[in-house]
Amino acid sequence: MAERQPFGRDLVIAYVELLEARDWAGFARLLASDIVYELPQTGERVRGRERFVRFNHEYPGDWHLRVRDAYGDAFGGAVHLACRVGDDDLDAVGFLRFDEDGLIVKITEYWPEAYEPPAGRQHLTERS
Amino acid sequence: MAERQPFGRDLVIAYVELLEARDWAGFARLLASDIVYELPQTGERVRGRERFVRFNHEYPGDWHLRVRDAYGDAFGGAVHLACRVGDDDLDAVGFLRFDEDGLIVKITEYWPEAYEPPAGRQHLTERS
Repeated sequence: MAERQPFGRDLVIAYVELLEARDWAGFARLLASDIVYELPQTGERVRGRERFVRFNHEYPGDWHLRVRDAYGDAFGGAVHLACRVGDDDLDAVGFLRFDEDGLIVKITEYWPEAYEPPAGRQHLTERS
Repeated sequence: MAERQPFGRDLVIAYVELLEARDWAGFARLLASDIVYELPQTGERVRGRERFVRFNHEYPGDWHLRVRDAYGDAFGGAVHLACRVGDDDLDAVGFLRFDEDGLIVKITEYWPEAYEPPAGRQHLTERS
């Protein structure tokens, strides 16, 4: 019997877990052949399953991913990631869209960087 | 009869729409009194409903919010926002947690900024 394809929030989590496991064959099975991966911060875009698997496979550094929050429905999902690259901790965020076959067809990913808070709101905020 | 409190994805969307409408009373009704709002990029934190409403109320500029993607369940949700501040377009991302009363008790928000792509992946990417 064919294995059941994960759905909704489970698909979002499977996407992260198969990446973390470097299970490239399992990872590729979640992706539509015409997947588009976008990084709006750099304007970069990767088109197609094969290139996108390779993009992740070739990604440099000893990177590790942990799901902090994940949501999903029949149409797509969102994930909040705690990432560790070497000794550095980073946050990342991804929004996924699924196609009619339940495959990931679009990913929009952000890697937010630290910045100085604007002036004028110290009366309402504390800082960690 | 009391109005039904929005739930799941609808609560995420109501949060954005009441902000956009500057409906501060309606906005406050979605929030737990002990809400914590976090901006990990600046390390800023705003504690409590009153301060958080004021933080938004006082937020400078002619800002407008549009939901690009929203997901949610009984425990929380995620939103991908297209923001316009004056003539500038910005992306923002929020992760929300709900309490047992269905009120928003935690928000983690990111305002990702542009950066130059790292070298070594131009063979897999295109740029917009």
